[in-house]
Amino acid sequence: MEPTADIALIGLAVMGQNLIMNMNDHGYTVVAYNRTTSKVDEFLNDAAKGSKVVGAHSVEEMVAKLKRPRKIMLMVKAGKAVDDFIETLLPHLEPGDLIIDGGNSHFPDTIRRTKYLESKGLLFIGTGVSGGEEGARFGPSMMPGGSVAAWPLVKDIFQAICAKTPAGEPCCDWMGEDGAGHYVKMTHNGIEYGDMQLICEAYQLMKEGLKMSNEEMHEVLTEWNKGELDSYLIEITRDILGYKDEKGEYVVDAIVDTAGQKGTGKWTSVSSLDLGMPVTLIGEAVYARCLSAMKDDRVEASKILTGPAQGFTGDKKAIIEDIRQALLASKIVSYAQGFMLLREAAKEYKWNLAYGPIAMVWRAGCIIRSVFLGKIKAAFDKNPNLSNLLLDEYFKGLIDRCQPSWRRVVAQAVTAGIPVPAFTTALAFYDGYRSERLPANLLQAQRDYFGAHTYERLDQPRGKFFHTNWTGKGGNVSAGTYTV
Amino acid sequence: MEPTADIALIGLAVMGQNLIMNMNDHGYTVVAYNRTTSKVDEFLNDAAKGSKVVGAHSVEEMVAKLKRPRKIMLMVKAGKAVDDFIETLLPHLEPGDLIIDGGNSHFPDTIRRTKYLESKGLLFIGTGVSGGEEGARFGPSMMPGGSVAAWPLVKDIFQAICAKTPAGEPCCDWMGEDGAGHYVKMTHNGIEYGDMQLICEAYQLMKEGLKMSNEEMHEVLTEWNKGELDSYLIEITRDILGYKDEKGEYVVDAIVDTAGQKGTGKWTSVSSLDLGMPVTLIGEAVYARCLSAMKDDRVEASKILTGPAQGFTGDKKAIIEDIRQALLASKIVSYAQGFMLLREAAKEYKWNLAYGPIAMVWRAGCIIRSVFLGKIKAAFDKNPNLSNLLLDEYFKGLIDRCQPSWRRVVAQAVTAGIPVPAFTTALAFYDGYRSERLPANLLQAQRDYFGAHTYERLDQPRGKFFHTNWTGKGGNVSAGTYTV
Repeated sequence: MEPTADIALIGLAVMGQNLIMNMNDHGYTVVAYNRTTSKVDEFLNDAAKGSKVVGAHSVEEMVAKLKRPRKIMLMVKAGKAVDDFIETLLPHLEPGDLIIDGGNSHFPDTIRRTKYLESKGLLFIGTGVSGGEEGARFGPSMMPGGSVAAWPLVKDIFQAICAKTPAGEPCCDWMGEDGAGHYVKMTHNGIEYGDMQLICEAYQLMKEGLKMSNEEMHEVLTEWNKGELDSYLIEITRDILGYKDEKGEYVVDAIVDTAGQKGTGKWTSVSSLDLGMPVTLIGEAVYARCLSAMKDDRVEASKILTGPAQGFTGDKKAIIEDIRQALLASKIVSYAQGFMLLREAAKEYKWNLAYGPIAMVWRAGCIIRSVFLGKIKAAFDKNPNLSNLLLDEYFKGLIDRCQPSWRRVVAQAVTAGIPVPAFTTALAFYDGYRSERLPANLLQAQRDYFGAHTYERLDQPRGKFFHTNWTGKGGNVSAGTYTV
Repeated sequence: MEPTADIALIGLAVMGQNLIMNMNDHGYTVVAYNRTTSKVDEFLNDAAKGSKVVGAHSVEEMVAKLKRPRKIMLMVKAGKAVDDFIETLLPHLEPGDLIIDGGNSHFPDTIRRTKYLESKGLLFIGTGVSGGEEGARFGPSMMPGGSVAAWPLVKDIFQAICAKTPAGEPCCDWMGEDGAGHYVKMTHNGIEYGDMQLICEAYQLMKEGLKMSNEEMHEVLTEWNKGELDSYLIEITRDILGYKDEKGEYVVDAIVDTAGQKGTGKWTSVSSLDLGMPVTLIGEAVYARCLSAMKDDRVEASKILTGPAQGFTGDKKAIIEDIRQALLASKIVSYAQGFMLLREAAKEYKWNLAYGPIAMVWRAGCIIRSVFLGKIKAAFDKNPNLSNLLLDEYFKGLIDRCQPSWRRVVAQAVTAGIPVPAFTTALAFYDGYRSERLPANLLQAQRDYFGAHTYERLDQPRGKFFHTNWTGKGGNVSAGTYTV
């Protein structure tokens, strides 16, 4: 029998099933396969019933049904399962065939796998897929990277099934070589951590500082979602704050305040440390989750440690607007930091990242989708070499407008004892980034004092190192043989 | 010839030479060896002239001169050089002999090396050595860990040469199994990053907010060093601020404000992320160095981005005292976070860390030595199971006293546009840690909304997970098969 299928997909959990049905809707013939093959039959008799989807009960059968060059997409758990399936598939494939990993893999694994499969004459793509179940079914944001020669093989399928911006552009584009796609997805998730933390802090300020009810906050977020903050996360927060159970009680109030962090948010922070990029807001968002998880410690400490008594003072409506502007300004800083990280990663890993297309890919389909990302795309379209988002005219204007509110609300929170680590670190970053002179001159003097680490001078060319014998004792020997 | 030497030391850079002379002063016979053997002769004819130090020009010669069991200390660059020397030494040693790594090795390497050498019947110690050249010569802080059976072999030597607390206790004690010593040293360095950043922020506030001269700041630090902040780093900062070159110009003003970060501070932050511990102050200190290194970006941004015009308002003397108290309170938070990290690492890596002795070891000899560490030792002596330093009576009392000043000065800095990321993150942590309820309930609701991640309820036992169909659309299927 002549092979007729366009692509195969392995892994029939919710995401995999939905991606298959999405491809099917767009006219592609998909072979569905799962290690536990009973899942294949269930799928064919349930969600895929009446579609063009074909099943396979073995790798051999799956491969036999695929047109050449074969395209096989893995939607399995990141880690060992991906490597195992690659080994399983290898004997059945021939040069030019393509394996696609659509899971949340760590980018160094994707770099390694690309090299490995290319050494066997095969092609590999590691692609970020964002948007959850619904995105997978009706249009996810997709961030593919890997073997450059593989992109033309899947471009049509991917750009058919992905989300589209309001202007109709596909939210899927080629990110770059080897691990670029998974790196961009990781950064997306880090930014998502930041966005969620910022919204939580705004909620905390309204709830604790202004003693607002869920209903009031629901109304405020309804308004916010009509303006510059218009985004999926504000929209669902609005819904959550308005949601009551069958007893008429707000569900959000019954939820335990502990959140986990082990995955992509942490990876983003570790990468920022490795690359020496001050991505402070995501860092604080990850740490805020860590602190939330220490519930027992917090309950004990809350009985012992003291804080200020009073809440916020001043006009409530004005403070709510201050909070909105503080959230917006902090969000600008967070995205500026995220794109700084991408730029440094591109340098380190030799990727040709294009920042406008990245913003476009995130514009719809994914968790951080927003009107805001349309503005970022516009900034990079206008100037693809923009060194920092904060320097773009539109965002600079926004920050100029927001910063009095931002400073007021952070000062109020600090005074009232309400923790807003992401708002404050964003502001500290902004003030540090616009400082020609930071106090690190003193730090360098300290290091030279106790470790003879040497320093550079403002009145001398960079790369020329000096040591001062600060104590007057001892020699002028410098320990800095590694640094000089 | 009968072997007569107590210990050998390989690596005759400044640290190695000084440690040898320190051991010699305490009556030990040391064999000095270096790969480039001309260094051995130079050392014997110079610094070691007239001492009991003996030289060796080959590994064979060095080993032949050592009493059994042999003790060989490496003072070479961390990384490959340590592994190379271990391999070089192995054929010359016999069961029960001991190799000591006194460099700044990463603790996973020390865990690996301990296992490896124990599998060969040998013993291994990885020890932190802090205090720079002068510490090495006259009394460093030492943090040994590794093969438990090795401690009695070097206890006398190490506790003879190390620094002593004002009460005469040795600043060297057994930290624990395999990588414990290097982990404690890494954390020490992370805390050092934090202390230095805090002092830089106090300097920045006085310089930019109060427009104080170096001479004025020199006087203020002279006062600070007589009280609760009495410490080596305050002392050298005082000296630096008072130091003029031969032309009568302050050297600190001529130093470029860029600091590097690639080593132990970064490792501490990465470890805190791996262990899920919110060690936010060290994190911000590392990021502050990253931002300082982006000098060209900052210079460009300083011409474009705007900030508030005014400096500080109010009584200068009162604000200086506010800054001192803010520094002290932030420092308490930083050490509380550092000890939280040690506690979690002890759990993760199965070390029996003793926190009082760790504080004692840091009390003198090392960069972070201070009166403050004596108070920490006292807190853990009083209650070895103290769950958090913030809950100790003395430190709680200090924070209670300092917090109005702390909040005032952070609010002023935020208003005036002076970046104080470490002061602010410390305060946000304090306010978060004492919060029974954080806004992570909203975050969990968001995750359940877009990813069906499920959540726990306050009115239900922990470990029971719930999902809400927030939109009213779609099924009740939870994606949380990994989390439930």
